[in-house]
Amino acid sequence: MIVTMQPGATLKEITAVIRTLEGFGAEPSISRDCGCTLITAVITKTPIEQHLLRGLSGVRDVHEDVHPFKRVSRDYHPEDTVIEAGAAKFGGGGFGVIAGPCAIEDEDQINAVARHVAAQGAKGLRGGAYKPRTSPYAFQGLGVPGLRMMRDAADAHGLAAVSEVMSISQVGDAVEYLDVLQVGARNMQNFDLLREVGRTDKPVLLKRGPSSKLEELLLAAEYIVDAGNPRVILCERGIRTYETATRNTLDIAAVPVVKQLSHLPIVIDPSHAAGKREYVKALTLAALAVGADGVMVEVHPDPSKALSDGRQSLHFDEFSELMSEVRRLAEFRAPVSV
Amino acid sequence: MIVTMQPGATLKEITAVIRTLEGFGAEPSISRDCGCTLITAVITKTPIEQHLLRGLSGVRDVHEDVHPFKRVSRDYHPEDTVIEAGAAKFGGGGFGVIAGPCAIEDEDQINAVARHVAAQGAKGLRGGAYKPRTSPYAFQGLGVPGLRMMRDAADAHGLAAVSEVMSISQVGDAVEYLDVLQVGARNMQNFDLLREVGRTDKPVLLKRGPSSKLEELLLAAEYIVDAGNPRVILCERGIRTYETATRNTLDIAAVPVVKQLSHLPIVIDPSHAAGKREYVKALTLAALAVGADGVMVEVHPDPSKALSDGRQSLHFDEFSELMSEVRRLAEFRAPVSV
Amino acid sequence: MIVTMQPGATLKEITAVIRTLEGFGAEPSISRDCGCTLITAVITKTPIEQHLLRGLSGVRDVHEDVHPFKRVSRDYHPEDTVIEAGAAKFGGGGFGVIAGPCAIEDEDQINAVARHVAAQGAKGLRGGAYKPRTSPYAFQGLGVPGLRMMRDAADAHGLAAVSEVMSISQVGDAVEYLDVLQVGARNMQNFDLLREVGRTDKPVLLKRGPSSKLEELLLAAEYIVDAGNPRVILCERGIRTYETATRNTLDIAAVPVVKQLSHLPIVIDPSHAAGKREYVKALTLAALAVGADGVMVEVHPDPSKALSDGRQSLHFDEFSELMSEVRRLAEFRAPVSV
Amino acid sequence: MIVTMQPGATLKEITAVIRTLEGFGAEPSISRDCGCTLITAVITKTPIEQHLLRGLSGVRDVHEDVHPFKRVSRDYHPEDTVIEAGAAKFGGGGFGVIAGPCAIEDEDQINAVARHVAAQGAKGLRGGAYKPRTSPYAFQGLGVPGLRMMRDAADAHGLAAVSEVMSISQVGDAVEYLDVLQVGARNMQNFDLLREVGRTDKPVLLKRGPSSKLEELLLAAEYIVDAGNPRVILCERGIRTYETATRNTLDIAAVPVVKQLSHLPIVIDPSHAAGKREYVKALTLAALAVGADGVMVEVHPDPSKALSDGRQSLHFDEFSELMSEVRRLAEFRAPVSV
Repeated sequence: MIVTMQPGATLKEITAVIRTLEGFGAEPSISRDCGCTLITAVITKTPIEQHLLRGLSGVRDVHEDVHPFKRVSRDYHPEDTVIEAGAAKFGGGGFGVIAGPCAIEDEDQINAVARHVAAQGAKGLRGGAYKPRTSPYAFQGLGVPGLRMMRDAADAHGLAAVSEVMSISQVGDAVEYLDVLQVGARNMQNFDLLREVGRTDKPVLLKRGPSSKLEELLLAAEYIVDAGNPRVILCERGIRTYETATRNTLDIAAVPVVKQLSHLPIVIDPSHAAGKREYVKALTLAALAVGADGVMVEVHPDPSKALSDGRQSLHFDEFSELMSEVRRLAEFRAPVSV
Repeated sequence: MIVTMQPGATLKEITAVIRTLEGFGAEPSISRDCGCTLITAVITKTPIEQHLLRGLSGVRDVHEDVHPFKRVSRDYHPEDTVIEAGAAKFGGGGFGVIAGPCAIEDEDQINAVARHVAAQGAKGLRGGAYKPRTSPYAFQGLGVPGLRMMRDAADAHGLAAVSEVMSISQVGDAVEYLDVLQVGARNMQNFDLLREVGRTDKPVLLKRGPSSKLEELLLAAEYIVDAGNPRVILCERGIRTYETATRNTLDIAAVPVVKQLSHLPIVIDPSHAAGKREYVKALTLAALAVGADGVMVEVHPDPSKALSDGRQSLHFDEFSELMSEVRRLAEFRAPVSV
Repeated sequence: MIVTMQPGATLKEITAVIRTLEGFGAEPSISRDCGCTLITAVITKTPIEQHLLRGLSGVRDVHEDVHPFKRVSRDYHPEDTVIEAGAAKFGGGGFGVIAGPCAIEDEDQINAVARHVAAQGAKGLRGGAYKPRTSPYAFQGLGVPGLRMMRDAADAHGLAAVSEVMSISQVGDAVEYLDVLQVGARNMQNFDLLREVGRTDKPVLLKRGPSSKLEELLLAAEYIVDAGNPRVILCERGIRTYETATRNTLDIAAVPVVKQLSHLPIVIDPSHAAGKREYVKALTLAALAVGADGVMVEVHPDPSKALSDGRQSLHFDEFSELMSEVRRLAEFRAPVSV
Repeated sequence: MIVTMQPGATLKEITAVIRTLEGFGAEPSISRDCGCTLITAVITKTPIEQHLLRGLSGVRDVHEDVHPFKRVSRDYHPEDTVIEAGAAKFGGGGFGVIAGPCAIEDEDQINAVARHVAAQGAKGLRGGAYKPRTSPYAFQGLGVPGLRMMRDAADAHGLAAVSEVMSISQVGDAVEYLDVLQVGARNMQNFDLLREVGRTDKPVLLKRGPSSKLEELLLAAEYIVDAGNPRVILCERGIRTYETATRNTLDIAAVPVVKQLSHLPIVIDPSHAAGKREYVKALTLAALAVGADGVMVEVHPDPSKALSDGRQSLHFDEFSELMSEVRRLAEFRAPVSV
């Protein structure tokens, strides 16, 4: 951290900055030969509150020179983290496909989807038992019975079960029935929930919030890892912008950015990004080419009857076609390093 | 709701749409004299999933003609809702001022602030006992001891105590110590938490999420009201945009928009919007003139030592000056009706 | 400017940075006592390309410590600039109101508006003779005949004539007929046009681009001032965000931010920000309270028949009511200083 | 277009809407059997101003059911448009690569780049002779001498010359020296310039504005086509969002969206999107996989000395590596249809 003092800063002001930095356990050094005074602090255990320094008299600017996250940083752990959950694997060069309906509706539905996506090469089964809905009047999910249906369907077809937990009270049941706990975009900064899933031994699929910076996504992952669970799979699902042609704007560059900053795997959710099924295949192929570690795709036996998000769910034959192209492209995927 | 069928839609396709609408309890009517077929459904108890209709064969477009919220809508309740919490009052033409530090740090700090802001005319005392922090390594708040300090300070100076609850587990203590439960921006769509505060009898101050639409804010309020608690105070605190001159972009038009759509009171948080104390007074006066029902402002005895958000906290004398101008302007505030 | 070298930077790399800075006319100084090498350059006449420095081997980060604009900066010219254009005045504590239709449609229309708005206290008459339209098939304006109609109407009622120039070829006629040349939001970075209006002796009303940062707005103004024309009135008209309840999101904080950084006056366009007439009055009062130097408002004798933007144009009686409240509030406007 | 009247709309109000629509040349039809009155107008030659209809008394809502553009629409011209410019070809399944420096600096520089990129398989040479710069103090380009250098370099290496025109006055020279006229992002809605390039017989590469919707990009293209020039290549170069990890947010979904709506080819500019050279290769491969018709990439013999945008320019060896992966992936590109 570098604190730049204003040109006429007094000795008293400079001393105050040094005392403050020392209060954080730093051993600051000063340099005065460059027109203005610079005070530099090497990293300390305690995080230094920049706001506090900025508020001091005589301070002109404060520059942070290190990333605010540690455990998820590639500096801290240079090799890629590879996460296995049942049959599914994320990181290490493969391309894991998770597929399934937006919401678990009944046994027949989840079974039919599991059978189809497993046959096509998916390794994970998605499906919501608890649905975060913008409106209190929309379908809210089946709860634990839904988790049980998902477990059975996943077991029957050799898939990893992936589903969202929306609150701490759901984590216990989720751990019992699932292979991967998903934290949804709306909960990316629900810090108590992050810590709670961080205390389990299940991989966590952490979705980026719709207006979160990538640095904030990595800090949210840091909460989970810091609580004891190193197995976090990041998920880019589109951010909110002014463009309305798609439901969200897929930030495809998130993949090389995250790969540069962190060792954690990152997957793409093309369905929520696009919001329309006709764009899902193209975005999946882009995810593969850009170097993502997988995708999570919505598939439904009859999207026109889906209780939620039918507009973006693939029909079975569309999913088959997508997987066929994924297989073709995957063979020739260049190992993307950044 | 109006469903427009494609020009060549078959009778079978039209029938499927009608059946689907009937499945939601609607009694749809058809009109075919205008080149294409239109199917209209009056509002039903069950919300109609537009996605489902859009997914049907032969459907060209679906238009919603009613707002998706009900209880918070002005259509449902034309008069302004007035909410009283101790000495503070929101709605009905007044301008309630809530002030205090970002975080409760110790008894002296919260008491000093309470004394000062009460003397200047504030009616509510804010201060965080639980702090949602982007980084797991930042100061996380004092918890219940902080709530107790706040209760004592508020009582000593005749103020309403306002503080954030971040999770369901904190609601019990919060109800014991507080007059107003705040739901923070990051939790605006933490639906379980919304329902939980909706089961209490305390007014709720609900902050808009940094990338939430106003319609989504109203739907989040609907969750609380629907759970049994009609006393929701909305709070605009700036949205996330590309502009970096301020911490967030204050959406001042949120006030007339919300006043048109809803009967609930709305206050402005100029401190989080600006991110810099030198803009807080100007934004507060704008809030007053635009017709807001109050503001929530950060004040600290010594912002340079604040444990969080010092850069945007007012010094005592700055708050005094702000209140002096608020009083002057308030006398002449035009009753803004939209 | 401060260049921070990477910890292990070689002497050769450090020398390369120094040579580069010297190439820009700077006399850099070095400090090495703080764990890493810092190279500092005081401001030079030639702007230093940060990208170039960032691209050099061994460089860790480059920090700019000065604003990139000069002539429009308050550092350069501490007192407020006051701009007079006919009867209208911007800066210096007043609140100038410019009003008129989106487009000049015919003599009767522009005359009727001029008469009404002058009677209510407006000092400027707006109206487009050239209309930038997103679609090539929309009404494109009357051109020079429109300018003549505006000149006559403005003269008849003692108003300053304000209208947009969209290209260099229109500047000659505009100078002949107008008192203030408006550069529209879409042309904020049409640098040739900025230079051309900078060579005239007419005040320029420069609208912020819908996705421009305030710093970019000030740099665009710098183009005009640098070309020889110091009379630039800035205009905030809302930025593009994800929110759809209003046409744009009015960035009300632009006023205190610009007042802090620059000596130029700034006005608000509540009509384009809101996009709906029912919000225009509230936003105008906010503009007044926040410290803006004026507003530009759309008024039409019969908005339902307006050839463009009718939805956001005020009826005559609505404008009268707005002006009545402006007068009341203006009396008590606190001199907002930041 | 469908106009929905309010429930209690009077006959007079309904008649007024019909008259208005008839004024646009439409033959509206009415349907009244569905609780509210709907008035429908089939498409007319004259565009119908929705604002005008919305402003009429008794109107509840107006729905547009057709795209506002025509000539660029796939409805109007179902087959892909293929555009050839010298050796370069866009559309029809290939992947055209345009490469070169941000700005033409001197003969040696542009020649060295041309030689290298041609050897690696690029078909177009980019380079700015006129540079739109946010600051009036930054390098502004070489002008016509730069165009001549580019022409010579392009001819010597069999490349198509691609460069930006910033104003109408530059179009004449540009037509003389270039194969493709580029309209930059800041000028996407400089309508006079669009019409001017629309009157030439050179292909136009039209870049999306940093806050433009895809519909607006297509409408800007419509201006060019409507002026007589059907050869428009669209270019997605990232949009402005709150994320700062990259210079802009590449909207990769623009490709399938545009392919669905329009017959025009679309290329990606990964350099301006990323802003950092280390992400350019990954984004180029994503562009290829998603179905784009090409890319435009910045390459410089010595990015550390580039007069602009050095941070995002590739070194020669990085470009060679990129092309090698492009060739590998292109062989197996699935024909992406949407």
